[in-house]
Amino acid sequence: MTPPPQPQPPAAPADFSINQMTVKQLALPELVAACADFGIRGVGLWREPVREYGVEAAAKLVRDAGLTVTTLCRGGFLTAAEPAERARALADNRAAVDEAAALGTDTLVLVCGGLPPGDRDLPAARARVGTALAELAPYAAARGVRLAVEPLHPMYAADRSVVSTLAQALALAAPFPAERVGVCVDTYHLWWDDTVPDALVRAGAAGRLHAFQLADWTTPLPHGALTGRGRLGDGAVDFPRWRRLMAAAGYAGPVEVELFNEELWAQDGREVLAETVRRYAEVCGPHAC
Amino acid sequence: MTPPPQPQPPAAPADFSINQMTVKQLALPELVAACADFGIRGVGLWREPVREYGVEAAAKLVRDAGLTVTTLCRGGFLTAAEPAERARALADNRAAVDEAAALGTDTLVLVCGGLPPGDRDLPAARARVGTALAELAPYAAARGVRLAVEPLHPMYAADRSVVSTLAQALALAAPFPAERVGVCVDTYHLWWDDTVPDALVRAGAAGRLHAFQLADWTTPLPHGALTGRGRLGDGAVDFPRWRRLMAAAGYAGPVEVELFNEELWAQDGREVLAETVRRYAEVCGPHAC
Repeated sequence: MTPPPQPQPPAAPADFSINQMTVKQLALPELVAACADFGIRGVGLWREPVREYGVEAAAKLVRDAGLTVTTLCRGGFLTAAEPAERARALADNRAAVDEAAALGTDTLVLVCGGLPPGDRDLPAARARVGTALAELAPYAAARGVRLAVEPLHPMYAADRSVVSTLAQALALAAPFPAERVGVCVDTYHLWWDDTVPDALVRAGAAGRLHAFQLADWTTPLPHGALTGRGRLGDGAVDFPRWRRLMAAAGYAGPVEVELFNEELWAQDGREVLAETVRRYAEVCGPHAC
Repeated sequence: MTPPPQPQPPAAPADFSINQMTVKQLALPELVAACADFGIRGVGLWREPVREYGVEAAAKLVRDAGLTVTTLCRGGFLTAAEPAERARALADNRAAVDEAAALGTDTLVLVCGGLPPGDRDLPAARARVGTALAELAPYAAARGVRLAVEPLHPMYAADRSVVSTLAQALALAAPFPAERVGVCVDTYHLWWDDTVPDALVRAGAAGRLHAFQLADWTTPLPHGALTGRGRLGDGAVDFPRWRRLMAAAGYAGPVEVELFNEELWAQDGREVLAETVRRYAEVCGPHAC
């Protein structure tokens, strides 16, 4: 018997980037090999698997393959009020900046963190994120790394990100030069918000659109609401509209597909990757917009 | 053996109202009796159990007990694009208005509805809600019923309410006189939004704060994200702050506690009610604010 043919997607569009989390079942060398096979030029990496593989070794692997590391995910969790915890978080973020620089990416995505246990003061927690950015931005700038504040869906406001809207992310970035602090736009988190189109225009004009990530919104949400990000085309997000909005805001950078999805993680990683490219071409390609 | 003593909460604060859904394990007569026992003066009713009991019979029951029906939940689901479905939805909403009038409440809460299946056009769906309000508002006004548009948490934007923010709800209400169309403010849905304080001031000044509901935000969210509304004090919501915000916006009406919570539904309804009153007095009473 001959083995089943390997899935072959259409060659990936030039701006397509695969976020490592989408196919976390692939070890880093497998992911890099699959990217070569499928003509994928960009990859968004995560700190944990990179550190497990070794930061320098990972950097060499992607560099030798000619891959662009579009982002490193993720720093952040900057809302602690307690001084020792706060110092620990800042040290960890400096390490994340170092890792980003070593990997040759210009963008570190920040998930800002939720409320500390027992704390109910959202405005104060958001203010602490701003203070932390002031400490981190010069450190990152000196290493050629931009900080991209990612607003997360409001359903994560308590435990993951007190930054819930693009407007809040832009307000946090505003005190800093655009090439130091900007935003990461993710359709999964922002698709519902009617203030986004105006905020995107502002962000683009200010040069603060540092990263763009895609996932679809599907229901019902799973327990914990973390791992239900849908494949492009399965849910409620109007991707052609998002492409137009981003283009109108002047964004011409890479587009990462980042899915947290238990079902996909249980499947063959190369097949998931092939299908992801196929769907990206379908919902975001030149025919779709 | 003597039976265990019935739980006796402190007498309910004058503005406390219990939303029927919080203790849906209590049949309507049991709920009315418990309200009398605990000094509760207001109740928010739901259409399904009211119709099951009989609208006229339910009206007599609450009237004879001296209870104020603070709201009827709920009309809405006004986003259908297909004409027959749209006509059905409008007819059902007129029936809801009639039921509200029969129950003697001045406020019908509207949950506006999600995207129709396969539809991804949020702005158009929101616009259809506005068109439907224009058809319903005169009908409701003629029967002395106000329509209270309830923004639901953005995690329900796809399948339950394309109206996700107080600003959107106010924009939908704006074309109508304030005594016809206003908003229902629910902490569970709006707690995360930093634009709420300003929007509340605008809503109050315009006379559009028609209802106020409380639930706490607890994590992790359950599968489906529908039945995880926390008891007051268990989660991330800063209730004293909300009380101050509503007071500053000029709201002096009843405050409904509305919890959808599987755990609470599995418990003794009178005990849940007693505990709900106790917690309301604790987090929203004069000592808390």
